[in-house]
Amino acid sequence: MKQYIKVDEWNIIEEGFAPHLNKISESIFSIGNGRMGQRANFEEQYSGESLPGNYVAGVYYPDKTRVGWWKNGYPEYFAKVLNAANWIGIDIRVDEEVLDLHTCEVKDFRRVLNMKAGYLERSFTAVLKNGKEVRVNAKRFCSIVDDEAGAIRYSITPLNFKGRLVITAFIDGDVKNQDANYDEKFWEEVQREVGDNSAMLTLRTKKTGFDVCTGMLFEVYQEGQRLDMPVQPVENIKYVGGRVNVAITTGQETIIYKYAANLSSENHPKEKLRNSCKAVITAIYEKGFERMLEEQAAAWAEKWEESDISITGDAAAQQGIRFNIFQLNQTYTGQDARLNIGPKGFTGEKYGGSTYWDTEAYCLPFYLSTAQEQVSKNLLIYRHRQLQKAIENAAKLGFTGGAALYPMVTMNGEECHNEWEITFEEIHRNAAIAYAIFNYVRYTGDTAYLADYGLEVLISIARFWVQRVNWSEARQQYVMLGVTGPNEYENNVNNNWYTNTMAVWCLEYALEVMAQVKKEAPAKYTALITRLDFNEETATIAWGKVITQMYYPEDKERGIFLQQDGYMDKEQVLVKDLDPLQRPVNQKWSWDRILRSCFIKQADVLQGIYFLEDRYDMDTIRRNFDFYEPRTVHESSLSPCVHAILAAKLGDEQRAYEFYLRTARLDLDDYNNDTEDGLHITSMAGTWMSVVEGFAGMRVKAGQLCFQPFLPAQWQSFAFKIYFRGVLLKVKVDKKEVYISNESDRDITVCIYGRQIPVSARSEETVGGEMIKL
Amino acid sequence: MKQYIKVDEWNIIEEGFAPHLNKISESIFSIGNGRMGQRANFEEQYSGESLPGNYVAGVYYPDKTRVGWWKNGYPEYFAKVLNAANWIGIDIRVDEEVLDLHTCEVKDFRRVLNMKAGYLERSFTAVLKNGKEVRVNAKRFCSIVDDEAGAIRYSITPLNFKGRLVITAFIDGDVKNQDANYDEKFWEEVQREVGDNSAMLTLRTKKTGFDVCTGMLFEVYQEGQRLDMPVQPVENIKYVGGRVNVAITTGQETIIYKYAANLSSENHPKEKLRNSCKAVITAIYEKGFERMLEEQAAAWAEKWEESDISITGDAAAQQGIRFNIFQLNQTYTGQDARLNIGPKGFTGEKYGGSTYWDTEAYCLPFYLSTAQEQVSKNLLIYRHRQLQKAIENAAKLGFTGGAALYPMVTMNGEECHNEWEITFEEIHRNAAIAYAIFNYVRYTGDTAYLADYGLEVLISIARFWVQRVNWSEARQQYVMLGVTGPNEYENNVNNNWYTNTMAVWCLEYALEVMAQVKKEAPAKYTALITRLDFNEETATIAWGKVITQMYYPEDKERGIFLQQDGYMDKEQVLVKDLDPLQRPVNQKWSWDRILRSCFIKQADVLQGIYFLEDRYDMDTIRRNFDFYEPRTVHESSLSPCVHAILAAKLGDEQRAYEFYLRTARLDLDDYNNDTEDGLHITSMAGTWMSVVEGFAGMRVKAGQLCFQPFLPAQWQSFAFKIYFRGVLLKVKVDKKEVYISNESDRDITVCIYGRQIPVSARSEETVGGEMIKL
Repeated sequence: MKQYIKVDEWNIIEEGFAPHLNKISESIFSIGNGRMGQRANFEEQYSGESLPGNYVAGVYYPDKTRVGWWKNGYPEYFAKVLNAANWIGIDIRVDEEVLDLHTCEVKDFRRVLNMKAGYLERSFTAVLKNGKEVRVNAKRFCSIVDDEAGAIRYSITPLNFKGRLVITAFIDGDVKNQDANYDEKFWEEVQREVGDNSAMLTLRTKKTGFDVCTGMLFEVYQEGQRLDMPVQPVENIKYVGGRVNVAITTGQETIIYKYAANLSSENHPKEKLRNSCKAVITAIYEKGFERMLEEQAAAWAEKWEESDISITGDAAAQQGIRFNIFQLNQTYTGQDARLNIGPKGFTGEKYGGSTYWDTEAYCLPFYLSTAQEQVSKNLLIYRHRQLQKAIENAAKLGFTGGAALYPMVTMNGEECHNEWEITFEEIHRNAAIAYAIFNYVRYTGDTAYLADYGLEVLISIARFWVQRVNWSEARQQYVMLGVTGPNEYENNVNNNWYTNTMAVWCLEYALEVMAQVKKEAPAKYTALITRLDFNEETATIAWGKVITQMYYPEDKERGIFLQQDGYMDKEQVLVKDLDPLQRPVNQKWSWDRILRSCFIKQADVLQGIYFLEDRYDMDTIRRNFDFYEPRTVHESSLSPCVHAILAAKLGDEQRAYEFYLRTARLDLDDYNNDTEDGLHITSMAGTWMSVVEGFAGMRVKAGQLCFQPFLPAQWQSFAFKIYFRGVLLKVKVDKKEVYISNESDRDITVCIYGRQIPVSARSEETVGGEMIKL
Repeated sequence: MKQYIKVDEWNIIEEGFAPHLNKISESIFSIGNGRMGQRANFEEQYSGESLPGNYVAGVYYPDKTRVGWWKNGYPEYFAKVLNAANWIGIDIRVDEEVLDLHTCEVKDFRRVLNMKAGYLERSFTAVLKNGKEVRVNAKRFCSIVDDEAGAIRYSITPLNFKGRLVITAFIDGDVKNQDANYDEKFWEEVQREVGDNSAMLTLRTKKTGFDVCTGMLFEVYQEGQRLDMPVQPVENIKYVGGRVNVAITTGQETIIYKYAANLSSENHPKEKLRNSCKAVITAIYEKGFERMLEEQAAAWAEKWEESDISITGDAAAQQGIRFNIFQLNQTYTGQDARLNIGPKGFTGEKYGGSTYWDTEAYCLPFYLSTAQEQVSKNLLIYRHRQLQKAIENAAKLGFTGGAALYPMVTMNGEECHNEWEITFEEIHRNAAIAYAIFNYVRYTGDTAYLADYGLEVLISIARFWVQRVNWSEARQQYVMLGVTGPNEYENNVNNNWYTNTMAVWCLEYALEVMAQVKKEAPAKYTALITRLDFNEETATIAWGKVITQMYYPEDKERGIFLQQDGYMDKEQVLVKDLDPLQRPVNQKWSWDRILRSCFIKQADVLQGIYFLEDRYDMDTIRRNFDFYEPRTVHESSLSPCVHAILAAKLGDEQRAYEFYLRTARLDLDDYNNDTEDGLHITSMAGTWMSVVEGFAGMRVKAGQLCFQPFLPAQWQSFAFKIYFRGVLLKVKVDKKEVYISNESDRDITVCIYGRQIPVSARSEETVGGEMIKL
């Protein structure tokens, strides 16, 4: 764990230059706008350790998978988010010496991520080898207003000399992915051009044929005047830029403005890409850096208005939660149903930047509550759009009749994980995708979604489950063999309780939605089942048999659900009895030992109890929690939030807070020594859940928002905003009371501690005092 | 299945040139001598499909493994047998046109593998594009007398023209492995030299640093006269050769003799490699091709004298079994305890050419019975030499205290398989290695081996098993979780009956051998346990607990051993009810479907029953056989032999014969469409077992050879040779009688159909008539 980030409520601050932390900071200080993202690499040349990353949403490369022996049904490729052309590059030479923080002395280094206004700022003084000192201030952002564009203000001031500055503003497309399986470069040049003070480079991905045009336009100012000097074009394969040579003098600031854009053929016809790019950079150039930045700040203010969580009495917690919300909003804006949320967002290459079940299980609640309905709806439509691919995935494994298996990892709907024990076996993701439909409709009340999109997905998923189980003559029940549950420290187990339970839940919910759509939208229903060649009667019977005759492993003596068949055959050791030197086990132990141990990577049975909590009484929840939690090593960042929420439900406020702490500042403090690979974007949503569903106990029951809040003892208060069915609520919890203010024009009645509390439009209600103690 | 090989009792014959079969023939017609092996690639240039392969025993490359996500305990590399420099190359140009069977018309093509004399011969007439016809006859062999050498006689005769022949005899080291994980070349040049009519090339493997010096010396004859013409040296990186230009005339034969050698730094100091190689090629050159060939034939005659099986009444069966014996003898000669038997021997790259448990489970019986004791002893010593590596393998997984886990795949003792489900889990190989010690001592009576080598291995293996099991509180028994049994169509199962059974057998046998060595060689015993830091008392108690309290899955109702926990939860389908279009399932089904099906790749429970048959009564064997056999798809070539032997034991002669047929001509007829990758060398030993342990019912009981023969109805007779404790026996079975002739100078008593039959030195006994019918 590192704690080098200064605590501040609205800013992420690094002071002092620490090359060994640089890749971590590159992740933490990442900027993005949902369409593109940029790690906090330096504009100027840097020969120290760095993971360059500019990522353009939806653009990927199908990297041939690495497996020992390929077998039928293994995916052919692993889709990788691509490191695209470097658009931030500004090389600086000071009197023939290259400015490179790796080779000079660095003083007063400070890096700030301004989360309120949405920009990154970096300043430092460099003492070059030749003794010359320069002061640099660089500010940049990816615009969420002009969402294909970014802008940079790079200022450099000589402190002790007079001389010449050679500035090269460039776009460099000769980049590669650090995690390329076969060390290939993924881009080919299509076209390049260099203008007066502009340059454009169009690259095409191998195999997938995505075109991305990266363009830039730059200008140089001194003493408030735009310099009108000759620009020397610089051009090479996959590299374009312009170079200027300016005189500088002690104390005189030279400012470079660089306006850049990344346009992808996903959003523009290929033949117009270059012209569209030129139009974007021209437009932002005309708008100018300062106005762009103002617009950026205003747009971020709106986002914060919807999604902020404020915490008083604990600035570190405040910073942590805001950082999470900031990064989530940088990653996904919900404007494009073709996009989704990679586990690392736009902050690194790991996990390929593809879509995992994290989206449905952990991220959806955040976007449901903090953004307009369309945002989370687009997350659902993403899966609906990929339904045919999910059916193809299942068909490759031998499933028939329109059965859909959504991928564990994907860019375009096709499965591309490269471990069979995940690809074929971690099939519970199908249930999370069905559950997201349930969750969305429960939250929004948008039942029309079911007829238009939801039911089709649910039927296709149900068709999968009913084939995936098999009848056990021995048990005279249905069983589900060869799965991997959410606990990935087990592979190829039989009858994972979570998977069996959620599979049956899917069948039940599909039947329920069938009946509902049939009743509420009969014409759509008929059209759908005709198109799907769906025999309602046969399906109802077949699904009903699985529903009623499914086998669920249990330990009746302990009164717990059993994670899988044979779990109690394992040596039962508790995490607390593990030598701390042996942890994290995934770094200290062989995979053999992990697989055979009883240790649980992340919530598994408890994930099911969390999803379906209304089915279980408190004693059952407590018994399972008390059994499984002590065996859980939480080596997935997606684990603690579920435990926090359940602990809160069980009234264990202290433990709920402890679980929350495990991910609250996961990346800021680099808990797991892996922030340099990128941020844990999807687990950030889990931290949000810990606060809102955990501490505030928020649930939607029968169409109503309910709360069961408590205030962590370490805090003075916390407050958050919630969108719910057109109403914007602010919920605040302090040591005395719970305050609900309705910031919209519609009345609403919420349920707090089981009490119905009407909150009129534009007014606030307070529930407090003794209630909190209950 | 292809049946293009002509049936002949002593020869493998291909007639007519079929380019689409060429890679298959390259495998089938491979030649080798235990130190080197050469696929039947053409001497002259060939631009059609071909898998070039010259393999030098013990020389390998650690190719970085391909895995999706590397985890602790995964092997870093997969050791690969290397395609070494091409020593057979003789390029031919006929009046400026290259002789290349891919580009000319080929007539009267005939390829013969003479198994009796141990050489490969190929003849054909080529009609070149320029209309010129040449007749070629090429004969070559890898000498089992000069076992680092090979020799070629290449004759070419113009049929319809007078002109010039340009002959380039060369060594080409610019070769690669087709199965390189990252498309690298594995060799670097160390040194090359070109002499008058000789050339030498020394190459070094990357990473492992093995040097191999390949040298050659050639001469050209016309009309019985050695031509004394100028040789033009040809030299390039990794390429050396000599070129001559000779006049030819219609009907006049030009003969090229090429003498070559592959010397490895495993057998010679690097600094002397070149000189040693020169000495070898000079020596064989002086000996001359014809004399070398005579010696080769004489040496092979000796081998046949020891190991032949003759079958009358079925020439195809005769050819098949001789082919198997021939290839086994080409692959392993038992002279070097550092060498072993790769599944493909020296006939292809697949499986890396490394050592698998095939050696102990399937090959050892062949070498025990057909060669001097030292040959099989060396197979055991190979593992003893690698014991420290096996202990390291186990330590990498977290095992301690000298526990040894022998590798699933290895070159040097280090595990290098690249699938965790095999590496960590297919641990039953440890038992096969212990069983091989038992089997060797049972057969040879060489109990001294136990004190000198065996017990150390047994203790180390026992130390592994006792840690690998764990106590199940739930069952109050020891269990073994997370294994893969011999049936690789199941992964990560719990309590594989075979593994549990063999693990306990290992503990029992280790205790038994401990007691025996302690008694018979107390000084060695004390020295050993001191060196191993072995506490006899503690171990005896701990092992004893596992022996007495192990859990074995059973289906009591059916009276069968259960392959693993939960096997009866699978949908129980029989192979006979499978649509033939769905077979082989490993080509037609996804791995997901295979894993979840009840289908068994190769003998698993039945393998255990085969190993420990004396423990089980006939009814138990029959019940298990009748249950498992119909569920077995035999998609490993190692499966049918075990079934053949058990069927024979159960008196089901017809089925025993059917199982035998499945592998009898596996490669000759390319049953599995994969002979082009190389021959199934280790399964060839299984076929031998089907005949000797199956049809002849040979066993060793209480130090005595026993037989329970029957004659397959399709045959007139069969006969085989057996070495047993210094006695060479010939056993012949015909429709009337069983003949045992003792071809040695010592008397022996064997047991036939339960009757004691003394067979005096140099005499024959007959057991016949009514006995056969019993």
